[in-house]
Amino acid sequence: MSTNTLDQVLARIDSDLEASLERLFALLRIRSISTDPAYADDCRSCADWLVQDLRSIGFEAAAHGTPGHPIVVARTAGETTSQGGTSALFYGHYDVQPVDPLEYWEHDPFDPRLETRPDGRRVIRARGASDDKGQVMTFIEACRAWKVIHGNLPIAVTLLIEGEEESGGANLPAFLRQHASELKADIGLICDTNMWAPGIPAIQTMLRGLCGEEVIIHAADRDLHSGFYGSAAANPNHILARILADLHDAEGRVTLPGFYDGVPELPETLRQQWESLGFDTAAFLGAVELSAPAGEKGRSVLEMVWSRPTCEVNGMGGGYQGAGFKTVIPATASAKVSFRLVFDQDPHAVRQAFRDFVRARIPADCRVEFLEHGAGRAIRFPIDDPAFAKAREALTAEWGQPAVFIGGGGSIPVTHELKQALGMDVVLAGFALEDDRIHSPNEKYDLESFHRGTRSWARILHALATR
Amino acid sequence: MSTNTLDQVLARIDSDLEASLERLFALLRIRSISTDPAYADDCRSCADWLVQDLRSIGFEAAAHGTPGHPIVVARTAGETTSQGGTSALFYGHYDVQPVDPLEYWEHDPFDPRLETRPDGRRVIRARGASDDKGQVMTFIEACRAWKVIHGNLPIAVTLLIEGEEESGGANLPAFLRQHASELKADIGLICDTNMWAPGIPAIQTMLRGLCGEEVIIHAADRDLHSGFYGSAAANPNHILARILADLHDAEGRVTLPGFYDGVPELPETLRQQWESLGFDTAAFLGAVELSAPAGEKGRSVLEMVWSRPTCEVNGMGGGYQGAGFKTVIPATASAKVSFRLVFDQDPHAVRQAFRDFVRARIPADCRVEFLEHGAGRAIRFPIDDPAFAKAREALTAEWGQPAVFIGGGGSIPVTHELKQALGMDVVLAGFALEDDRIHSPNEKYDLESFHRGTRSWARILHALATR
Repeated sequence: MSTNTLDQVLARIDSDLEASLERLFALLRIRSISTDPAYADDCRSCADWLVQDLRSIGFEAAAHGTPGHPIVVARTAGETTSQGGTSALFYGHYDVQPVDPLEYWEHDPFDPRLETRPDGRRVIRARGASDDKGQVMTFIEACRAWKVIHGNLPIAVTLLIEGEEESGGANLPAFLRQHASELKADIGLICDTNMWAPGIPAIQTMLRGLCGEEVIIHAADRDLHSGFYGSAAANPNHILARILADLHDAEGRVTLPGFYDGVPELPETLRQQWESLGFDTAAFLGAVELSAPAGEKGRSVLEMVWSRPTCEVNGMGGGYQGAGFKTVIPATASAKVSFRLVFDQDPHAVRQAFRDFVRARIPADCRVEFLEHGAGRAIRFPIDDPAFAKAREALTAEWGQPAVFIGGGGSIPVTHELKQALGMDVVLAGFALEDDRIHSPNEKYDLESFHRGTRSWARILHALATR
Repeated sequence: MSTNTLDQVLARIDSDLEASLERLFALLRIRSISTDPAYADDCRSCADWLVQDLRSIGFEAAAHGTPGHPIVVARTAGETTSQGGTSALFYGHYDVQPVDPLEYWEHDPFDPRLETRPDGRRVIRARGASDDKGQVMTFIEACRAWKVIHGNLPIAVTLLIEGEEESGGANLPAFLRQHASELKADIGLICDTNMWAPGIPAIQTMLRGLCGEEVIIHAADRDLHSGFYGSAAANPNHILARILADLHDAEGRVTLPGFYDGVPELPETLRQQWESLGFDTAAFLGAVELSAPAGEKGRSVLEMVWSRPTCEVNGMGGGYQGAGFKTVIPATASAKVSFRLVFDQDPHAVRQAFRDFVRARIPADCRVEFLEHGAGRAIRFPIDDPAFAKAREALTAEWGQPAVFIGGGGSIPVTHELKQALGMDVVLAGFALEDDRIHSPNEKYDLESFHRGTRSWARILHALATR
């Protein structure tokens, strides 16, 4: 294919930007909060919207029912044979995080707006603008431009867009295995990650795994008056606080027995490469009004967030939390704890170690309940595979800056599932930025990320079609 | 006064029981939750209801405005001089605890019902049925019967009924000092305590003090994604859990420096008296489905709840507590902590020690905020004062069981204020039972407590009038 073929597509993307934004806004208006059952119908609507949109540009698309939220699958027909056999599976998710605390939002999280910030940057503000609807739409808009201009894509593409990424993704693994033959492709593509910095594109080649657990401690069969029962009766707040405090030692290390099994020190060459990235710890923490690195003593922040396992208490609660005061000993207290995993850590072994650790700290007359919230191993991709080099060149061409291979702190369990179930490697190329406030109030996605992200995917599709 | 004088009053109480209950139910329907500003109008309505009811039986009554909720004061006129000079100040509170978790209630907490339990006991079920509306109405109904039968009370009585007992009582101390001359009486009477056991009346002569604190830890300026910031950024849940866990040592002792200053060992004679009460630890804990005493090792449960200081985490929360999971590092975490104080512990010194303790555990780039929720010293009354002997005899006569002098785990800060501001001792005679579930869902008050409690106050008023 000639460069001119690509240039026509890029020009179409530029001229169609306003309509692209309108489509993204329509998607952002759908309240697809997957973790809260109250929004199940919205998730269904979101899947249906994607099916309709993908059909409108010539994909064969359907929303497949699962015990949870639907999974959208769309495929082109015919491109594979005509274009030399390269094929790709694009994965994304249409579900979003909850929006609380709602009072911190400057406007309705599901009423997307295009804003111009004081520094002149234009941003799309809404829940899911970055994670992951905005990123998903960069790929769909790239496909749309190819189809409009040339009638087909340069390679065969299947899209897999799920609705449970933010809530544990319990139903995806079985779906992948059941549909392995339809979904299998030469390379996976995912747009759910960050750029290295504004203007500097990146491909993540290391991702941490995840193990999520909820623990509920039950003591008395009712809330008690702390004046009458204080000291005498077990207080689940105390038990829980002790457990959560015990999870880290004074050096910031996680204390679960065996937790660091399968966690080697970083190879010296990789450590040096990361050091050469010029990561600015003060700026990283300063952006959120912090200054002192927490976590493991003696390790750099970049090492901690890219290649070290962590344990974070994402939520905890027990007793009276309303206005004023209530002298109560609650019947229960609970916490949500997540572990980020690296290298060969086994999420199931970590879960078991956590449960043993908790049970050992529960008084004889109390009981504990556990809820499982997702599990996925860490993953690393072979960066010498040609697909990675092609994608890197395409990104470099679009942004005018060399794209970098980086590690990453977040977990995208599906990457592991794609490897396990379908034997596929994945190019993780995303255009989110560190200040996108994903999972927080006032989430945004830069208009530049959306526009040039779309152009980047048009280029990557083009690059993957070359020998 | 002859015994016949009293018998007529008791007979009136018996015959008027149904109407008494109707009046109590009307009071229980008012949602006077003082700690939640949303119920301020209900608190005002509750005060007005009491004023109208007290006027209807011949009291001079008014609701006095405060910066918080109104304080009701009512007094008889003329009885003092005609009856030999003894006077009493009755204190109670019309405000109630919050009702959450609402889903645990078997019916609307403010829709009072008379129920017959499987064991045949008849109970009044509603928020405030026991604490303290039901108990307050035993006294008012006793006054009503005296007034109806004899036109006046046997002694001069002033009622002081406040609306902030459950929310720290910030405005009462100043009110007491401002109105000292009108409120001062020979003896205080309070009906806000428990019987020793069903059928066995008690007068509490020791009460613990209270110091309530709320602590809010602020870390980053927004909620963060734990995949990107985990380990690197301070997690206020971790900081809070560590602080709360550190508050007790492995022996169950509170670790605040100086906390046990002013806390002597129990005198041997009192310890022996308490041991002779036959307190059943297994039954006490078993009633709420517990079996293992928590708290200080080597001390009896009765000692812990009556004469030892305690520290309880009444509420804590941080991060995502909804359904499902959210991988967030919250911007803040908070806890409500109460200390029960004994003997000469100074609540202000305890508060200061707690704040120093917390501040010492806050990382340099985080900050902490404190909210004060009430302070009161512990108190002991002189049980050789004749008023105590008269009240004890009256209770013994009503219940057919010797009334006992006991300690108590709860705090009634007003008792200290009455002593400080007005120089008054207080007879704490209440008819609540351990299974009343005060501060919990499905609070109740036994019909027998209400009926015989009313008769008890009629007898105590009669006894106090005797030389």
